[in-house]
Amino acid sequence: MPSEANGGSMNHAGPGSQSSLRRDNVRRVLEELATAGPSTQAQLTRHTGLSAGTVASIVRDLDDAGRVRLERTTSSGRRALNIHLVDTGRVAVGLDIGRRHVRAIVATPSRRILADVQRILPLGHDAVTGMTAAKRAMEEALEAAHRSREQVLGAGVGIPGPFDPVTGRVGSGAILPEWIGMEVASRLSDVLDVPVLVNNDANLGALAHLSWSETPPGQNFVFVKIGTGIGTGVVIDGQLYAGHRGLAGEIGHTIVVDQGLVCRCGNRGCLETVASTSSMLRALAAAPNPPTTTDELVSAALAGDTVTRRVVEDAGLSIGQVLGQLASLLNPETILLGGPLSDLGELLLEPIRRSLKRHTVPDIAVATTVRVSALRDRAEALGGVVSVLNRADPADLYGPLAAPSDASSTV
Amino acid sequence: MPSEANGGSMNHAGPGSQSSLRRDNVRRVLEELATAGPSTQAQLTRHTGLSAGTVASIVRDLDDAGRVRLERTTSSGRRALNIHLVDTGRVAVGLDIGRRHVRAIVATPSRRILADVQRILPLGHDAVTGMTAAKRAMEEALEAAHRSREQVLGAGVGIPGPFDPVTGRVGSGAILPEWIGMEVASRLSDVLDVPVLVNNDANLGALAHLSWSETPPGQNFVFVKIGTGIGTGVVIDGQLYAGHRGLAGEIGHTIVVDQGLVCRCGNRGCLETVASTSSMLRALAAAPNPPTTTDELVSAALAGDTVTRRVVEDAGLSIGQVLGQLASLLNPETILLGGPLSDLGELLLEPIRRSLKRHTVPDIAVATTVRVSALRDRAEALGGVVSVLNRADPADLYGPLAAPSDASSTV
Repeated sequence: MPSEANGGSMNHAGPGSQSSLRRDNVRRVLEELATAGPSTQAQLTRHTGLSAGTVASIVRDLDDAGRVRLERTTSSGRRALNIHLVDTGRVAVGLDIGRRHVRAIVATPSRRILADVQRILPLGHDAVTGMTAAKRAMEEALEAAHRSREQVLGAGVGIPGPFDPVTGRVGSGAILPEWIGMEVASRLSDVLDVPVLVNNDANLGALAHLSWSETPPGQNFVFVKIGTGIGTGVVIDGQLYAGHRGLAGEIGHTIVVDQGLVCRCGNRGCLETVASTSSMLRALAAAPNPPTTTDELVSAALAGDTVTRRVVEDAGLSIGQVLGQLASLLNPETILLGGPLSDLGELLLEPIRRSLKRHTVPDIAVATTVRVSALRDRAEALGGVVSVLNRADPADLYGPLAAPSDASSTV
Repeated sequence: MPSEANGGSMNHAGPGSQSSLRRDNVRRVLEELATAGPSTQAQLTRHTGLSAGTVASIVRDLDDAGRVRLERTTSSGRRALNIHLVDTGRVAVGLDIGRRHVRAIVATPSRRILADVQRILPLGHDAVTGMTAAKRAMEEALEAAHRSREQVLGAGVGIPGPFDPVTGRVGSGAILPEWIGMEVASRLSDVLDVPVLVNNDANLGALAHLSWSETPPGQNFVFVKIGTGIGTGVVIDGQLYAGHRGLAGEIGHTIVVDQGLVCRCGNRGCLETVASTSSMLRALAAAPNPPTTTDELVSAALAGDTVTRRVVEDAGLSIGQVLGQLASLLNPETILLGGPLSDLGELLLEPIRRSLKRHTVPDIAVATTVRVSALRDRAEALGGVVSVLNRADPADLYGPLAAPSDASSTV
């Protein structure tokens, strides 16, 4: 998060200091309230792992600072206080910029979704058009959420291509060619007029499942986005894994056809040349009644069109082959499928599972769950929200805390 | 680490407590002294990120407890105290049990290697033979190191197969079939009579490079062991990654030949069926003067034997293909090659690099360094040492600390 986002008043002490420990503990309590909802002190103690004394002291400080509201309740037949987080009005924005769409989601630090706006983009749009559309979508979403730009903690933006966090530039495999090499965060920050965090869209899709999934995928899982491009977000021990230069998860360029079609990455026979939505539409162009959009392709397959089903099955077999290799290497608990083909359900899942089983060791095949993400096409923008909330200072998320708490002797 | 290893007197407080913070800080100082060698307080402050006051207080406590020795020196022309860690006599043992050998290394918490013993095992040895040989190798190494079994913190044991940390059992792909399904840590602990940690040998090979590498491979790297089996140890953000069920890194079973030879894993055409040492020897059996051992194979290739070089090249191309897929997924900074083929050098590296480049996106190919591990065939046993040191309590590693330090007000 650029420094603009850190408008709070808390001191940033070195690692291992008493005030940094206190701040971590306060953050732990606030995050528990944000994600689990109103809780008693006993629940907070249990879920944060902090001592009862530390929790009591933090709750007292938060109450004094007006950051929580206490409400009488009963817990296991005994009287208790329910602690509610007070809404500070601050929000995070998640933006998903695709080849044909832009989506903006506005949500609170408590993960409450206030607005969700989608706009269609012209195919082959240039960078300025894309950024301007993102800005409009954000403004519409903020208006629907009754929030001002001043209340925005930041925007987490997903882009369909690799993003190098070291250089801040878009990598060469990006689906929007005009964006390649661009310092996209600073450009977007100028246009949107809020602090911006950029990440690959599949990475953000994965991140969303750490906060929003109804069926948690575990601490080691992979989110596979199948669209115009194919990419994955890799979560390892509960953390998004970016790789040495932000390029982790580029499975779309695993070679599955020897001497196959030339790929936009400069190689040939990559997974994307047989299993991306555009490759499937291209393959189907020779069919009697070819679908021309992804929606038409999904409809035709669901309606039972033989050749469309065949192309979907072949794509699934290639995807399963690469996911089998991935499973051998990463041994994930869950593989989640996202992107516009999710509605195909078993038509896509069955060949993927069959091929995955064929291409990995039996022990791993048994231990890997493959399913469609329940977050559907909102995963990327929701992940943008999470990326902002994860990086923001607790003081920004939940309002400034009373200064004395840092100096308190109860760590 | 089983609880037997925790013989120290320190209290284990909950996360986020003052005493756990103090313990973490003490550990940080001790580890810096253990890995970097004698240091001044200014160096410790710089390298640990702790405040000068915290470091001074910890050094005072350690000196009172007799755990460090202070020696006058000059630093940048000014007088300073050099802080030396006092040897407590405690050691960690690393054991590498292979299909044809067992190796035992004894080292101090300061990573000083005191002894290194290797024994040859009969091919197809049973589990009891292997464990007994491991015991003898450990005893020989302890004798050479002038240490008793009572001074052993624990033994970190590498085995050539997947190990499931949840069940504590050896997985079904193991190279020693008799060991499959065995609760190997408790069995070995009975035989060796010391606390035992078990891990896959390639995982330990990776771990060793975090402590002992002359050219550090970075925080994101992969160690590839090419032997009778092929496996990898994956280090992500400086931590060894085990996967959901301890099966991460099983690249030996990535399929590289459609309808190829049946593999011991129950699949067919796996990388191991073309690039393991036993597969290469089997392929060469039809040659005019076939090598019959891995050493002979290496010598023949180095001497310029055409067909051996061809088989090595083909193996390298298949390995490079799978490493290209790995690089697309993990974007590691470095790929380190270990195992008995390391002496082949460029004969193996060149086809691997060529094929890796062909099988991953150009951006990743450029950003990935492939080289032979400088730790050679000691990597696995050294990793066993590291696994023990990483899990031991500081009090066990460096001797018990004076009780008052935990209650000190300077955190």
